[in-house]
Amino acid sequence: MRESNNRLSVLRSLIKIDGIDAYIIPSTDPHLGENIPDYWRIVLWMTGFTGSSATVVVTETFAGLWTDSRYFIQAEHQLTGTGIVLVKPAFPDKTDFIDWLGNNIKPGGRIACDGRTLSIGNMRKITKALDGKNVMFDTECDLISVLWTDRPPMPLSVALDHSVEFCGKDRSLKIMEVREQMKKQSVDYHLLTSLDDIMWLLNIRGNDAKYSPLLTSFAIVNEQQVLLFVDESKISLKLATDFDKLDIVMLPYEEIDGMLSVIPNDSTILLTPETTSASLYKSILHGTKIIEDISIPTRLKAIKNKTEIENIGRVMVKDGVALTRFFFWLENNSGSVAMTEISLADKLNSLRSEQENYLGPSFSTIAAYNEHGALPHYSATPGTDSVIEAAGILLIDSGGQYLDGTTDITRTIAIGKPSAQQKKDFTLVLKGMINLAMAKFPAGTKGCHLDLLARKALWEQGLNYGHGTGHGVGFCLNVHEGPQYIGPGTGTGSKTILEPGMLVSDEPAIYREGEYGIRIENLILCYEDEETEFGQFLKFDALSLCHIDKSLIDISLLDRKEIVWLNAYHSEVFEKISPYLNDPERLWLQEKTGEI
Amino acid sequence: MRESNNRLSVLRSLIKIDGIDAYIIPSTDPHLGENIPDYWRIVLWMTGFTGSSATVVVTETFAGLWTDSRYFIQAEHQLTGTGIVLVKPAFPDKTDFIDWLGNNIKPGGRIACDGRTLSIGNMRKITKALDGKNVMFDTECDLISVLWTDRPPMPLSVALDHSVEFCGKDRSLKIMEVREQMKKQSVDYHLLTSLDDIMWLLNIRGNDAKYSPLLTSFAIVNEQQVLLFVDESKISLKLATDFDKLDIVMLPYEEIDGMLSVIPNDSTILLTPETTSASLYKSILHGTKIIEDISIPTRLKAIKNKTEIENIGRVMVKDGVALTRFFFWLENNSGSVAMTEISLADKLNSLRSEQENYLGPSFSTIAAYNEHGALPHYSATPGTDSVIEAAGILLIDSGGQYLDGTTDITRTIAIGKPSAQQKKDFTLVLKGMINLAMAKFPAGTKGCHLDLLARKALWEQGLNYGHGTGHGVGFCLNVHEGPQYIGPGTGTGSKTILEPGMLVSDEPAIYREGEYGIRIENLILCYEDEETEFGQFLKFDALSLCHIDKSLIDISLLDRKEIVWLNAYHSEVFEKISPYLNDPERLWLQEKTGEI
Repeated sequence: MRESNNRLSVLRSLIKIDGIDAYIIPSTDPHLGENIPDYWRIVLWMTGFTGSSATVVVTETFAGLWTDSRYFIQAEHQLTGTGIVLVKPAFPDKTDFIDWLGNNIKPGGRIACDGRTLSIGNMRKITKALDGKNVMFDTECDLISVLWTDRPPMPLSVALDHSVEFCGKDRSLKIMEVREQMKKQSVDYHLLTSLDDIMWLLNIRGNDAKYSPLLTSFAIVNEQQVLLFVDESKISLKLATDFDKLDIVMLPYEEIDGMLSVIPNDSTILLTPETTSASLYKSILHGTKIIEDISIPTRLKAIKNKTEIENIGRVMVKDGVALTRFFFWLENNSGSVAMTEISLADKLNSLRSEQENYLGPSFSTIAAYNEHGALPHYSATPGTDSVIEAAGILLIDSGGQYLDGTTDITRTIAIGKPSAQQKKDFTLVLKGMINLAMAKFPAGTKGCHLDLLARKALWEQGLNYGHGTGHGVGFCLNVHEGPQYIGPGTGTGSKTILEPGMLVSDEPAIYREGEYGIRIENLILCYEDEETEFGQFLKFDALSLCHIDKSLIDISLLDRKEIVWLNAYHSEVFEKISPYLNDPERLWLQEKTGEI
Repeated sequence: MRESNNRLSVLRSLIKIDGIDAYIIPSTDPHLGENIPDYWRIVLWMTGFTGSSATVVVTETFAGLWTDSRYFIQAEHQLTGTGIVLVKPAFPDKTDFIDWLGNNIKPGGRIACDGRTLSIGNMRKITKALDGKNVMFDTECDLISVLWTDRPPMPLSVALDHSVEFCGKDRSLKIMEVREQMKKQSVDYHLLTSLDDIMWLLNIRGNDAKYSPLLTSFAIVNEQQVLLFVDESKISLKLATDFDKLDIVMLPYEEIDGMLSVIPNDSTILLTPETTSASLYKSILHGTKIIEDISIPTRLKAIKNKTEIENIGRVMVKDGVALTRFFFWLENNSGSVAMTEISLADKLNSLRSEQENYLGPSFSTIAAYNEHGALPHYSATPGTDSVIEAAGILLIDSGGQYLDGTTDITRTIAIGKPSAQQKKDFTLVLKGMINLAMAKFPAGTKGCHLDLLARKALWEQGLNYGHGTGHGVGFCLNVHEGPQYIGPGTGTGSKTILEPGMLVSDEPAIYREGEYGIRIENLILCYEDEETEFGQFLKFDALSLCHIDKSLIDISLLDRKEIVWLNAYHSEVFEKISPYLNDPERLWLQEKTGEI
């Protein structure tokens, strides 16, 4: 019997004692972000499942795990023998653990959860699903802390003072801007729960989670002060002195609930329901006016400032140099040096780490060979790690965290001679990538409106891809950053107006199940183009700098404008990257970026 | 002093007696549709303003009219000397009469309105704007009936039994389908207030309003019966007998409120807040579960059935013949016969009326010469009626109601030799029209996603148009019919998934203020194309049949695919229209539809 099963038995005995019919374990932490510290990886500890997104429900006789379809194969493997079943909904995205609760909890029952890890949104959905059944929902029930005796400590990285030379704006100015917006919205208190919001506002970075330079903390901004809830030992004396001058008051991390509960209930508080936990929400006094909206720092940091944009430009050169060396090395050693998906990811990371101000990968590198490329979120494990052979399609999606910016780029290359279908697929994806990059559009345009540009060439051939086209990217922060989004949906992201200064990815793709995947991704920056009698027009500038594999292009499928764009892009890549290369690398890049 | 001012004085004395601080007069009727009978044109009677959309607010010392920007010039002219001021918001669409009420009604005040003409949505907005001010809002206050002594009678057209040969589905089947959907949504009663919903469901048509073949009525569908609230004299004995067999029970029109008030409050009622009046809403017993959504007939009738589609095809031929004869006559008589915008509209209507099953225009024809074309909703009046000269740009947007379908088509033609800019503008608009018509897209795509296809060529040149690209069209019903819509918004319409069988307009445009307007509009029908491993794909078929003025095309701006599309379209126009033309007309059309 695997260890996780033992943990399940003990949990079951606890819920029996407490008279709980179902105990819910979300895979999130109190900040409800994408990357969480080991301390909060309860689902992993309980089930052995390593995916980043899941929910577990445990009853006396049942234990189920819900996750999204990209993890189905992995979850089935990892849950084998644990007594926990993977619950696959009959219709994707139609049924989840909330429906299960609605269907299976008997009237008058009792369910429980540690509300620190449950978003307000999910709390409401659960309550609604159980409406009229007189079910008690206890959101203050932490059964794990008692059970998990060898739990990793709370993360203890130290705050780094993120220089204005990198981020371009003093923290005092940012605080002022946030307060201005609060005044406009008649807000007295602004609760910040997203770690990247707090990092941006205070110009600090940390190392509490993998892939994102975050420091575990909460913050409340009011007219006079910024209350920063953080372990004191994480803040240096120098930083603490600076904070003090700006009325940034440090309080213990755990005191956030207590502070929320003493905010006078004749005041107005702004919070984001997607990133605020049920526990925090319940701390707020009844009668307090709560405005639920995207946070002000989220809106402000989405518009990169001039210094950030200049820094991102330099980071793109560094990242491009590492990528060029990587692909040069790969082409010259393929067949002679043994390569696997994992060894390639390591190699690329090692080349990036030669660059200045590099902190680490911005997400788990996807090096996906042949059929693995057809899994959009594939991440090689020792069990799946493919050996790179003499022929095939290799998809590399990777990114770096630098003090002066965050990157995210995908290139797909042919090893050996590609087939006609591979070339056609690649060229259709390339057309989509180029057409979005070339877009000119009026101010006020939203992401859902532009998404078609990346898909049109594929749709015309009866092809498509099942994910969005573009996500926002942070500045030395989360590689996925809202609110902007380019995709077919009509949710908050796709409804967000694209504004000058927004950085977004451009990543159409095609996935042939069991064969290969092709994705081409650049980061593009929105900027102001001409103003006419019909209004202000905007365009994109492609910032990522890495050649695109010409051996996969079927030139007959490209139109004139697309060819001109590609040649100009390649010329820019060569011009900016070549000064940092040695002679063999430079010659190689010259050929790779030559005109088609 | 104009007569309308007298009416204002008498109204003022009435509101003084009743202690009302502000009396609100919407320009709608109890069905909240686009075309209303004269009986309900209270705004016109009170103010002299002839526009289709406005709200009037009258206080002891102030009388204001709010309308949208397309009517500003007309409203200012028509309101001169009436004592009623046109209120133009500082920011378009940002301020309206509701904000005015919020800012001007004093705490403890009293406002009033005839709630039969106020939508639930506006009632809620007004209540919200006055929140916390302790203002009494009386929605049962009809002051007009007393004042308007020579009011036109309630419309009294007789119901026409719309044959299954036209509409393709028996009313008994439609009622069954609505009940099936009601069951799925757990609805006991479905309130229908939109006249086109009722016409569609019962296969009847009327003549109570201009431009739409509607019969004033309400309906409630439950499991056993359809309660039809209609003046008995409008229904023939034959129809009444048929209704009786299907348990369609006729009740006096005025009894709708009374019937709503006796629906048991343990039942569920489905209604549409946009088309249901405050009065009806208030008739429903407290505690009744109300589901607010698009009505079931609205969803069902948006998908045209096989017979309807075949009939629309035939109607397009008839409409195309009338249009061809019109443009032939225009070209051959321009310069010799005196022509004005109004005389052209009359000529076109007279040519349409030669066609079988023609009922009348589907909206007020827009014949707009030169600078008038730059006003998207221009409708010539004797005061504005332009004489057509030897050179210029003429925009004709018109449509017909036929028993076998509804049309809506715009063509823009050059009279004399067009300028290079006019040709460029026309060709860019044409590219947009063609590219939307050529679209191939996966099932699940929404209108906001496709809108870009019609704009891309314009955007690339810094041009744009300020309205949506496509609206749904009824079948011998309203020329504007939801829920589908192709536009940049993310409202209900643009969020509606496009489905096979939906008929929608495709009408990009460009408006050069003070110069001319260019719009090209076809109706296109969504149908199923191939199914691939990536899902079901859909396409459009252009149904409207009328040549596009080649003298306005700059061929160098068209790409190969666009030229192929246009030549194929023109060839289809000639093939389908020419059999109905005389020799000179046929030869003329052959030249007009010849290859480019």
